[in-house]
Amino acid sequence: MIKTDILIIGAGPVGMFAVFEAGLLKLHCHLIDALPQPGGQCSEIYPKKPIYDIPAYPEVLAGDLIDNLAEQIKPFEPGYTLGERAQTIEKLEDGTFKVVTNKGTEHYAPTVFIAGGLGSFEPRKPPIKELVDFEDKGVEYIIRDPELYRDKRVVISGGGDSALDWSIFLSDVASEVSLVHRRNEFRGALDSVEKVAELSKSGKINLITDAEVKGINGDGKVESVMIKHKTDGEIIKECDHFIPLFGLSPKLGPIADWGLEIEKNAIVVNNALDYSTNIPGIFAIGDVNTYPGKLKLILCGFHEATIAVQFAYNIINPGKRYVMKYTTVNGVEGFDGEKKEAKKAVVKSM
Amino acid sequence: MIKTDILIIGAGPVGMFAVFEAGLLKLHCHLIDALPQPGGQCSEIYPKKPIYDIPAYPEVLAGDLIDNLAEQIKPFEPGYTLGERAQTIEKLEDGTFKVVTNKGTEHYAPTVFIAGGLGSFEPRKPPIKELVDFEDKGVEYIIRDPELYRDKRVVISGGGDSALDWSIFLSDVASEVSLVHRRNEFRGALDSVEKVAELSKSGKINLITDAEVKGINGDGKVESVMIKHKTDGEIIKECDHFIPLFGLSPKLGPIADWGLEIEKNAIVVNNALDYSTNIPGIFAIGDVNTYPGKLKLILCGFHEATIAVQFAYNIINPGKRYVMKYTTVNGVEGFDGEKKEAKKAVVKSM
Ligand SMILES: Cc1cc2nc3c(=O)[nH]c(=O)nc-3n(C[C@H](O)[C@H](O)[C@H](O)COP(=O)(O)OP(=O)(O)OC[C@H]3O[C@@H](n4cnc5c(N)ncnc54)[C@H](O)[C@@H]3O)c2cc1C
Ligand SMILES: Cc1cc2nc3c(=O)[nH]c(=O)nc-3n(C[C@H](O)[C@H](O)[C@H](O)COP(=O)(O)OP(=O)(O)OC[C@H]3O[C@@H](n4cnc5c(N)ncnc54)[C@H](O)[C@@H]3O)c2cc1C
Repeated sequence: MIKTDILIIGAGPVGMFAVFEAGLLKLHCHLIDALPQPGGQCSEIYPKKPIYDIPAYPEVLAGDLIDNLAEQIKPFEPGYTLGERAQTIEKLEDGTFKVVTNKGTEHYAPTVFIAGGLGSFEPRKPPIKELVDFEDKGVEYIIRDPELYRDKRVVISGGGDSALDWSIFLSDVASEVSLVHRRNEFRGALDSVEKVAELSKSGKINLITDAEVKGINGDGKVESVMIKHKTDGEIIKECDHFIPLFGLSPKLGPIADWGLEIEKNAIVVNNALDYSTNIPGIFAIGDVNTYPGKLKLILCGFHEATIAVQFAYNIINPGKRYVMKYTTVNGVEGFDGEKKEAKKAVVKSM
Repeated sequence: MIKTDILIIGAGPVGMFAVFEAGLLKLHCHLIDALPQPGGQCSEIYPKKPIYDIPAYPEVLAGDLIDNLAEQIKPFEPGYTLGERAQTIEKLEDGTFKVVTNKGTEHYAPTVFIAGGLGSFEPRKPPIKELVDFEDKGVEYIIRDPELYRDKRVVISGGGDSALDWSIFLSDVASEVSLVHRRNEFRGALDSVEKVAELSKSGKINLITDAEVKGINGDGKVESVMIKHKTDGEIIKECDHFIPLFGLSPKLGPIADWGLEIEKNAIVVNNALDYSTNIPGIFAIGDVNTYPGKLKLILCGFHEATIAVQFAYNIINPGKRYVMKYTTVNGVEGFDGEKKEAKKAVVKSM
């Protein structure tokens, strides 16, 4: 059972920064994310790409932005429930929210921040009839722990960076890696494409292009896949795992059924005050919210998080007055005991 | 005569970032500031102190923050009117705003952003009867060009960093530097205090403590000051310049008389939409504005600037529709011809 002050659903950049602002007010946060790592779109979709409109960063890689945020919030020791999707929410009699994930993990908090971005990322699934029957029985869409594939025979399909990078990585772990792609062209970083070509030549990756996986066979778990080649017809390829890597597409998902006011697939909030939703105690910040003039930008989410935290403070500490202080003047006191502070001016007599 | 798309009054961090967001929308900006350099409070009050709550900067010196912002906006080639205070505003018949500074410089623009922070910084003046009569006749409160003091006899008064640092600096430029301070203790960086002590010993600075400048004499320009010492009585010190450095205190100043709705010394804006003021075409962003829940934080000003720019676009380009694009996807195209862009994914056949 997890208890915290602010339960944040979505560990993208905006949810992460909320941890920092909450920490300044001595509020503890816990983050839930469906992905196995924090960082949201920045980590999942474009970690190696530069962003140019983060204030005071003429250029920053999305992955570095997330690393810097992680360092900034570390003293406040947030909790994480990763690789799980927040599924249900319930307001208990004492006003506490109970949030349960798809894996049954329970979270309790007096306030909830939805920082769900475009929603929980769900894998794009290829149209193979037997696919769902083999999920978690040899079919995986996200590689959480590469060790699962040690000395196993793996078939990966896809033509983008994920498919390329994991084929390269697993060629050292699995006993056999086959990479199946519908075309003879790959859309990925140049060095990844070249590395795969090289590993294919040396026999470490079994490259099958102009082909698609069309069927799965097995008795209770994956035993082989049926690959249809453009010109050569059908091939049966024996394997232990089939990993389709066609990217992730976001879905607002379960949050859409929580009784929140939704407009254009986003949660309506009160931007004139506190970024609260229609349910008292639930706030929505970042890409997931909408209001007149909303821009789905990271820097806007930072502001929304900062404002919302001040109002959450009032809910968590009713009647207590908090006066914002400058970090430069007051320093940052982490929950881990760390204290950062500006050097004070020196008074010295002559 | 200066013409631009968005005239920004106040070149603090928030006014500076507005230049960037405007540039993304191909709008040109011009900044007016009463101070001789951009950066507002960060540059003027605490350039060497760390800020901890700039998103994705676990720690950044206020001065470095400003340097980074300057680099970020450079491709958009903003214009600057520095060392002048925006004094009057007038809406011309065609809807253009005309803003004139205290030095008579005229600026024309269809939209005005007030990013004046706590107001225009005005020097704190010691209570000396003759002071105002000698302003610009040997009395200066801000050192704009140290060359003015070459081979001159200078009396500086004050006990903080400015007084210490300028005494050190001018000891190499002026023919004589006297530093007068009311107490025998200085509030400044340790190394500055020690340096002054050293220069005093070697006779390069004439240090007069436990004393105050009480009068100024001269015929049309400063010829001497009268210094009152705690125990030694009055001293007449001949000099060409008297520079009282008692810090700057911000005053909303002339902006308060522009017909804008003012509350608690700040400009009321519509935070539910666009950070516009009660005068159409004039927006207020950063510390200078107020609305329910307002926090005087740099990161909040960045958001306000970004939103306001989108609405200014509609005024400047009536009827034209602008769709925001991610910098990562679209790059940044500076007015100076510079183009920054993420590397595109590579398509390569095997
Ligand atoms: C290619 C690309 C380029 C971009 N370029 C820029 C740019 O230059 N500048 C800029 O400002 N922005 C840019 N963006 C947008 C930017 O990435 C988003 O604004 C930002 O990621 C939003 O942050 P967030 O924290 O609100 O949400 P997200 O980053 O979307 O994170 C939300 C997280 O919530 C999780 N989640 C959602 N629902 C649930 C649930 N029910 N249970 C558990 N977890 C859940 C998701 O898995 C996700 O990790 C770009 C986006 C893309 C895709
Ligand atoms: C010691 C200290 C520590 C701080 N620590 C933090 C912190 O940790 N985090 C944080 O977020 N914030 C902090 N702040 C506050 C932060 O500096 C301000 O929020 C920020 O500077 C506001 O930026 P701005 O651009 O709105 O205004 P300012 O920085 O105030 O700049 C406004 C500019 O407008 C000019 N101006 C005003 N009127 C006129 C006029 N009529 N004509 C010409 N020019 C004019 C002024 O000269 C000034 O340069 C701190 C402030 C201080 C003093």
